[in-house]
Amino acid sequence: MSINVGIAGLGVVAQGLLELASTNSERLSAIAAKPLCVTRVASRRLREEAALGSIPFSTDLDDLVNDDDLDLVIELIGGTDAAYDLIKACLNRGRGVITANKAVLATHGNELLEIARERHVPLAFEAAVAGGIPIIAALKTRFPANSVNWITGIINGTCNYILTAMSEEGVAFEDALRRAQELGYAEADPTFDVGGMDAAQKLAILVALAFDVPIEIDEVYCEGIQDITIDDIRHADEFGYSIKHLAIGRQEDDVIEMRVHPALVPKDNLLARVNDVENAVQLGTTNTGVLRFTGPGAGGHATASSVIADLTNIASGLYQQPGIGGKPLQARRMGDVSSEFFLSIAATDRPGVIASIGEILASHGISIASMVQKQEEVVRSDDSSVIPVVILTNSVVERELDQSLQELESLDDIASPIKKIRVVDLA
Amino acid sequence: MSINVGIAGLGVVAQGLLELASTNSERLSAIAAKPLCVTRVASRRLREEAALGSIPFSTDLDDLVNDDDLDLVIELIGGTDAAYDLIKACLNRGRGVITANKAVLATHGNELLEIARERHVPLAFEAAVAGGIPIIAALKTRFPANSVNWITGIINGTCNYILTAMSEEGVAFEDALRRAQELGYAEADPTFDVGGMDAAQKLAILVALAFDVPIEIDEVYCEGIQDITIDDIRHADEFGYSIKHLAIGRQEDDVIEMRVHPALVPKDNLLARVNDVENAVQLGTTNTGVLRFTGPGAGGHATASSVIADLTNIASGLYQQPGIGGKPLQARRMGDVSSEFFLSIAATDRPGVIASIGEILASHGISIASMVQKQEEVVRSDDSSVIPVVILTNSVVERELDQSLQELESLDDIASPIKKIRVVDLA
Repeated sequence: MSINVGIAGLGVVAQGLLELASTNSERLSAIAAKPLCVTRVASRRLREEAALGSIPFSTDLDDLVNDDDLDLVIELIGGTDAAYDLIKACLNRGRGVITANKAVLATHGNELLEIARERHVPLAFEAAVAGGIPIIAALKTRFPANSVNWITGIINGTCNYILTAMSEEGVAFEDALRRAQELGYAEADPTFDVGGMDAAQKLAILVALAFDVPIEIDEVYCEGIQDITIDDIRHADEFGYSIKHLAIGRQEDDVIEMRVHPALVPKDNLLARVNDVENAVQLGTTNTGVLRFTGPGAGGHATASSVIADLTNIASGLYQQPGIGGKPLQARRMGDVSSEFFLSIAATDRPGVIASIGEILASHGISIASMVQKQEEVVRSDDSSVIPVVILTNSVVERELDQSLQELESLDDIASPIKKIRVVDLA
Repeated sequence: MSINVGIAGLGVVAQGLLELASTNSERLSAIAAKPLCVTRVASRRLREEAALGSIPFSTDLDDLVNDDDLDLVIELIGGTDAAYDLIKACLNRGRGVITANKAVLATHGNELLEIARERHVPLAFEAAVAGGIPIIAALKTRFPANSVNWITGIINGTCNYILTAMSEEGVAFEDALRRAQELGYAEADPTFDVGGMDAAQKLAILVALAFDVPIEIDEVYCEGIQDITIDDIRHADEFGYSIKHLAIGRQEDDVIEMRVHPALVPKDNLLARVNDVENAVQLGTTNTGVLRFTGPGAGGHATASSVIADLTNIASGLYQQPGIGGKPLQARRMGDVSSEFFLSIAATDRPGVIASIGEILASHGISIASMVQKQEEVVRSDDSSVIPVVILTNSVVERELDQSLQELESLDDIASPIKKIRVVDLA
């Protein structure tokens, strides 16, 4: 008896999957110890270029639900609504699902995983986070006698490509974004990637697996990279840091931090050297020190390859539904998180300004680790001129820092808003 | 019904295992869905400090073979002979085995894995290579529709610690080795590590899994780091390279290269930045680009943690015996391998010497990518003085390079032997 597989979608990943399934057909069937056959494809629109061969195709996703000869459905349509309906209907019919869709998991994952558990059918999603990096498998099976204490990752290739181009070639954000779009690394509407939501969704999934809590996308603090300037990158560089868009999950005393934002990373940290569209995930563990994984975060073949690994693992009985949600997620508010901060303050070049900054920070218990007053004058629209003062603080609770910034911004000699970027040194 | 586990050995890993199994007892049993119990420990010598509690202990390893209440035996005694006898006897009784012992796998792995396959019992060995890095699991299950084309790794922590100390602190090999011994990173007899045999054994196992060939330790070309000097490291640094002890496996047209030796690695390669006792493995794949894993290569808790992951995977039915040996290993001789080379030639400071070097290399079709004549005079025992000439060649087949070096060494103005170190740029 064969294992019959249906595919939803005909985009880049689906086409990569059809190609890899066809060229590796014998090997895959050998691993599964029975024939693995793609017997149905459905996609809301047909792409003429797709190599469907003789596989039945329709534009009605329900055909994948109603075909009771299918053993597994691979969901590659993306988005949340139609994907949710499809996955739920398949699981409820006792049909296993493999998905590469972080958005549907971030929004409906708890419910879908619960149905999968109840129905004893697999819902696999290695490809949903960090494409080709087997991080889901590692979190699921490799740490039974170990605690993951923190996760830090570069899990959005678009942001990483843009920040790399800004850093290495000195191009502005808008130009780097345009080039990312030309290369197919960014969507026509890039908000979802550069605004951080894509990374936030992936982080919510990683955190649920690592800490056995529900997937709670609403608890992820999310900032994008739109406001990062070449000057920020240059000033950070002078302090010995790179600016990366990081996803951070950390558990401390059962309280969990989930945050996605640009961050200063020390140049000797592996993350500072992960460039272009490459992804990276670091795990801080109790008994296995720090484990680091890097690899392609996207791409049709890399993602399809992860989907196929899920497929053969399920087909050969090597799949176990991950446990998440064993305990409630108690989230730490961003205001309660302690960080060192990089501050870039545009100040009038007038005696006493630096002293005022120092006094106000000190009155909030914030000490200054480094401060540089730049000599580059910036002329503002009202013809006054300001000079950037760049500061690295010692560690401080964010709420306290924000109060000090409010006070600073109320001064006549200081422009508002003050740029703050968190420093992250988890390694 | 419980799963009864026996442990062979009472060294650092076994003690870490007993501790982790005890502190995580409930969680492990929950994962396995039945109680996991260590019910017997045997070690040829008793260590008083070991926390055995009420677990029956004996100094006769055969007790682990003869106890038919045991479901699994974890072999942590190391070495080849007694470990081989124990593993073979257990497998032949239908009892699964988990081992952290690369030496026994490198010498007897094909036979032991064959017995495991025939008897349908697991023989798991994640901890045998790169300690805490889940590289065996990745190679076994994550690439069904993918080809691994090459593997490069830093898989001996002792060598990496010594080279890091030499590079970062300028201490000589002997001093770095002594410090590694004081810190417990090197054995009293360090030959096995610094001579490269430890890395060779691990490489033979990785190659077998990656390319589906038998484990053939005798086909691994093996060089250690004993002859690397501070000057080599400094000269390589000036060319933009770090010197690392690498394990390399590569498949090309069904011919397989297996080699372990010091190598110049470009400073922007991840491997150049893996320092101290940390391990790293990089996989070059057809569909998933380059995947990189780093983490602790040794240590009681990291290794025990990998053993326990094997244990819970077996206990919960998530273990599959890896296929190796599906095709014969056709090995490439080292003389047939092409590399760029770093050469350090001690030459008399006399006009015409450089020209002679250039001519001889050119007569073998070897072109010079960079050449630096150092100004540091080295006085030899016969009171003559030599000056190092440091060369980077373009890519050349090793046999041709060796012939050119023989000719060079026959010149009066050139000291013998010439130092050659391969350049590796797989990334």
